[in-house]
Amino acid sequence: MKKLKLGVIGTGRIGKVHIATLVQNVPNADVVAIADINFAGAKETAQAYGIKSVFDNHMDVINHPEVEAVIICSSTNTHAPYIVDTAKAGKHIFCEKPIDLSLEVIKGALDAVDKAGVKLMVGFNRRFDPHFMKVRQMVAEGKIGEPHVLKITSRDPAPPPAEYVAVSGGIFLDMTIHDFDMARFIMGSEVTEVYSKATVLVDPAIGKAGDVDTAIITLTFENGAIGVIDNSRKAVYGYDQRLEAFGSKGMAYADNDFPDTHRLYTVEGVQCSLPLYFFLERYLNSYTNEMKVFCDAVLNNKPLPVTGKDGLMSVVVGLAAKKSHQEKRPVKISEIL
Amino acid sequence: MKKLKLGVIGTGRIGKVHIATLVQNVPNADVVAIADINFAGAKETAQAYGIKSVFDNHMDVINHPEVEAVIICSSTNTHAPYIVDTAKAGKHIFCEKPIDLSLEVIKGALDAVDKAGVKLMVGFNRRFDPHFMKVRQMVAEGKIGEPHVLKITSRDPAPPPAEYVAVSGGIFLDMTIHDFDMARFIMGSEVTEVYSKATVLVDPAIGKAGDVDTAIITLTFENGAIGVIDNSRKAVYGYDQRLEAFGSKGMAYADNDFPDTHRLYTVEGVQCSLPLYFFLERYLNSYTNEMKVFCDAVLNNKPLPVTGKDGLMSVVVGLAAKKSHQEKRPVKISEIL
Amino acid sequence: MKKLKLGVIGTGRIGKVHIATLVQNVPNADVVAIADINFAGAKETAQAYGIKSVFDNHMDVINHPEVEAVIICSSTNTHAPYIVDTAKAGKHIFCEKPIDLSLEVIKGALDAVDKAGVKLMVGFNRRFDPHFMKVRQMVAEGKIGEPHVLKITSRDPAPPPAEYVAVSGGIFLDMTIHDFDMARFIMGSEVTEVYSKATVLVDPAIGKAGDVDTAIITLTFENGAIGVIDNSRKAVYGYDQRLEAFGSKGMAYADNDFPDTHRLYTVEGVQCSLPLYFFLERYLNSYTNEMKVFCDAVLNNKPLPVTGKDGLMSVVVGLAAKKSHQEKRPVKISEIL
Amino acid sequence: MKKLKLGVIGTGRIGKVHIATLVQNVPNADVVAIADINFAGAKETAQAYGIKSVFDNHMDVINHPEVEAVIICSSTNTHAPYIVDTAKAGKHIFCEKPIDLSLEVIKGALDAVDKAGVKLMVGFNRRFDPHFMKVRQMVAEGKIGEPHVLKITSRDPAPPPAEYVAVSGGIFLDMTIHDFDMARFIMGSEVTEVYSKATVLVDPAIGKAGDVDTAIITLTFENGAIGVIDNSRKAVYGYDQRLEAFGSKGMAYADNDFPDTHRLYTVEGVQCSLPLYFFLERYLNSYTNEMKVFCDAVLNNKPLPVTGKDGLMSVVVGLAAKKSHQEKRPVKISEIL
Repeated sequence: MKKLKLGVIGTGRIGKVHIATLVQNVPNADVVAIADINFAGAKETAQAYGIKSVFDNHMDVINHPEVEAVIICSSTNTHAPYIVDTAKAGKHIFCEKPIDLSLEVIKGALDAVDKAGVKLMVGFNRRFDPHFMKVRQMVAEGKIGEPHVLKITSRDPAPPPAEYVAVSGGIFLDMTIHDFDMARFIMGSEVTEVYSKATVLVDPAIGKAGDVDTAIITLTFENGAIGVIDNSRKAVYGYDQRLEAFGSKGMAYADNDFPDTHRLYTVEGVQCSLPLYFFLERYLNSYTNEMKVFCDAVLNNKPLPVTGKDGLMSVVVGLAAKKSHQEKRPVKISEIL
Repeated sequence: MKKLKLGVIGTGRIGKVHIATLVQNVPNADVVAIADINFAGAKETAQAYGIKSVFDNHMDVINHPEVEAVIICSSTNTHAPYIVDTAKAGKHIFCEKPIDLSLEVIKGALDAVDKAGVKLMVGFNRRFDPHFMKVRQMVAEGKIGEPHVLKITSRDPAPPPAEYVAVSGGIFLDMTIHDFDMARFIMGSEVTEVYSKATVLVDPAIGKAGDVDTAIITLTFENGAIGVIDNSRKAVYGYDQRLEAFGSKGMAYADNDFPDTHRLYTVEGVQCSLPLYFFLERYLNSYTNEMKVFCDAVLNNKPLPVTGKDGLMSVVVGLAAKKSHQEKRPVKISEIL
Repeated sequence: MKKLKLGVIGTGRIGKVHIATLVQNVPNADVVAIADINFAGAKETAQAYGIKSVFDNHMDVINHPEVEAVIICSSTNTHAPYIVDTAKAGKHIFCEKPIDLSLEVIKGALDAVDKAGVKLMVGFNRRFDPHFMKVRQMVAEGKIGEPHVLKITSRDPAPPPAEYVAVSGGIFLDMTIHDFDMARFIMGSEVTEVYSKATVLVDPAIGKAGDVDTAIITLTFENGAIGVIDNSRKAVYGYDQRLEAFGSKGMAYADNDFPDTHRLYTVEGVQCSLPLYFFLERYLNSYTNEMKVFCDAVLNNKPLPVTGKDGLMSVVVGLAAKKSHQEKRPVKISEIL
Repeated sequence: MKKLKLGVIGTGRIGKVHIATLVQNVPNADVVAIADINFAGAKETAQAYGIKSVFDNHMDVINHPEVEAVIICSSTNTHAPYIVDTAKAGKHIFCEKPIDLSLEVIKGALDAVDKAGVKLMVGFNRRFDPHFMKVRQMVAEGKIGEPHVLKITSRDPAPPPAEYVAVSGGIFLDMTIHDFDMARFIMGSEVTEVYSKATVLVDPAIGKAGDVDTAIITLTFENGAIGVIDNSRKAVYGYDQRLEAFGSKGMAYADNDFPDTHRLYTVEGVQCSLPLYFFLERYLNSYTNEMKVFCDAVLNNKPLPVTGKDGLMSVVVGLAAKKSHQEKRPVKISEIL
């Protein structure tokens, strides 16, 4: 079996997820080199997964002679420069979202990719979740007819620390960005206008950090449909990830995923398990599917299902949502891009 | 058993629903007189339900010596004047929604009720639906903690004729008005701001009649929570009436109601029945509960659960939603009232 | 509208259910006379439902000149003689289950009905439950192909008093009899063999009264299919009434019926309402449907959907189940009938 | 991390499942040697999973100096002798079910294990299915009170070839054996009596091969509870694996597992995905959990959750079920063991 030789930059939480997935569940992947500024951490990871080369400088991974493609999982501010570095080295790229929070910087990175003629995939893993893939498939097959209304519920089980919130770019670029990509994915149409209604209901510290924690975002799509996303930083019952697409011929819905199907009937009521707790549990399969698709596309020169443009557009919609919240009015995408 | 002697004005669709309910399912109700400008229709109804007195003029019902309370089910433009007439006659009133589409006219009618010291209940029957009552109960009992987000889905199985649409006052005052009342009911808090995003996706004739058929309406509540209603005039799979209230301690959800619980597993998939088709099927129980509550409150001098203010406020929110749609911006309730 | 003039014998619990149903929900029924050996109770019922004639002797109802059909709701031991009396009077009969516990007596009653040429319907109300009707419809339409396995779960919320148990004929003739009829109804095929495994797990007093309270009964059908019923006298979470029919092309399932569709998500789990508590709640609709079918069939000379043979066969299967339990072996129906 | 050095005998379907699981998903497992009489197949598997030593003789695995524990996945008739061989070599054993179809042979193998003082675990993987584990946990924690009734539905999506059926030992020892183990596991109590009602409804070829394809098996437990298993060799809608445990305080239920949670509402009904197709899909997680538990128990000298006695007892109950079917009467376990 032909294997893709991979380097991974960044061995934090998401980096480890990708490394574990690649080593254990993607037969045609071969992780040959990894790097992290925290060299001790990188070394530990390398040992745990039997990876030969480990560095503290990302360029060592990019320039590693065996490496054919690079997985960028380092902090957001490094995504764009590392994309440029990798592109210049003529190697294919998988980059975690967001590429950057500045449109100029993103465009610069995408230009570098274009010029180098390498492949770039952005890490919108939820597109590979079996539940949401099924809804997308049904919309694409015309099972719901013309799409009219899209609804996404996306609630985290617990808010991040206020320090993180302060540098996160705000809920729209940090959390809703996944939902913006999901909206574009399910509808197969671009967003043209955004209206955000948002507030602080979960934790005053989030407000003090200049952000909001509860939001309802109305979307207008190029195809005429409309949509709504509702977000909360804290659902005490666990990760709440549902969506529905409603159209002229019907409605397709995807519920949360549960650890088991049990029902307990007692004198006090009927009870079942809570949804899977957070993204590592809920989107475990999506990470595997994502990496398989990336390796397969690079090895066999197939088009990538999540492109640089997808990475760009989700940030554009996020910036529009932020502006709408700040200016308390609907904002057209054409005002941003 | 002491019975409440009732007169009913208007024997169209909803009038017949109330008459049937009162005669068959409300033991302490006694319908003694009914009227409709379509006298032949009224006579037929009277015969079917064994009602003694039948008239073509609403004043004959109001002034009927036995009648203690009047159920107003005639066309919307007659609601306010008939409320005034009934109040002047010193009799209690149940009036279908909306009281009127003009705030001046509504206020005039409520003044007349106040002066006369009679009871007035407005026909927001969905408040008596067992599924939604349960969610309201849970919110009121603090089961979800502080409310943060309310979501209401409300889709009709088929649009009304374009001629009706033209005189309906528009989707916000004709259809969403029920959802505005539901939002206030579930949250136990007033709406302070509305933003409507609406369009024509179901039927161009509705657009030509000056209305929209698909809408997403964002609400802000006095208690700080936010909410969203999504409407469509046409869900091919039947009446879609769901809601959820999300808060600091959890989420309470009410699904559609189905005619039966069957599941059919075949090689083609797992299938179940569609939701109950439309409001007469879905809200059958709510009409019975509503009439029982009204008769009980009048007979035993209890406060009514849906007041004139509720009738007023739902129209106020509806007017704000309409203005928001027309002016493409969020509208504060204080701009209307 | 032509109405059927009815007399009701027995105004205990089930008698009152039928009277209320007929008066309130069956437009073409007219209850003109009722009787009970407890005359005071009968009088109260007559007053509550506006029934003109009330007696303490069943013959007064049977011989009432206006009465065209008689509803027999008195105690089981009177069913057969009253059927005979009514048949002799040339009037149609609806009789509660079981007709009797003795096959001789049942056959005698059915002979009287045959000779008189009157109609007889036996009160297996569950056949008119919307959930089970749907499964029957699917089996009849061939949606599951050839039926292979039938499963019925039937559990009461609480056991009857031990005194009642002592005279009930035992669980198989008192409780499972409904399930035997349901089995024949769903499968459209006769039972040919029964094996009962039963024991006392709920209440030792039931054992002392000579009965069992927990049972699993295996059935063999004439069409080659097999089936199983499981019974308990006490499900603390309420009435548990489910069934499934499995065949060569699929499986049709009917779940319990719930008072509402709410789900509450909290940190402790996801919770929903318990099933409807007992037969009066769960089978409310089935009683109405049953009475409508009876009145319609008698008025319009249509065949009855539950015949005297159905009444006979459910007792036959019940006796076989009892014998199987006593003799600890499978018993063929041909040993009984 | 300390790793358990493993050898695997048999690289057919189930052997490959275990090898893949051990290599990819069990961090503390190290498969060092495998063998199959089909040497070419074994070699291919060794290559795919990077296993160093590959043989055509099982003794080479057992005697391999590095091997500490042996996974026996060869054909049923070899299970017992290979257990004996491995025990004699002083190595720990995981053996697929059934150990053998002869009680004498099983007892001989268990004796050898006892004498050698090695650990033996039998491959009842379903005990490690998250859905069934949850029900077991609830029963063990007393959530349902005293257990009264156990119900297991177990249907395969398609029957095996008739040639396989002919040598399988029959449905009770080939298919129901899993359900017998599940019954003992959930109830935490031994079976004392069995009654089987079984027939040929799926495929006459199965009947010609001397077996049945549809069965209902009634169980009596030592703790006084009763239970029922229903089996079919062919559920066209996929693998149907459900169970419920009912007791004095409630009922715990586990449904099938589905590939996704989507619902599609169209004018034709509400539809969702079929259950996971067969055991490789449904019990994927259970195989992983099972191997993790085995490796952990051997490495850390913990007791095994599925013992030789479990392997013995499931065959004993299977033989009783077979005898019951042949003799058309309930059979006590004491008649077998």
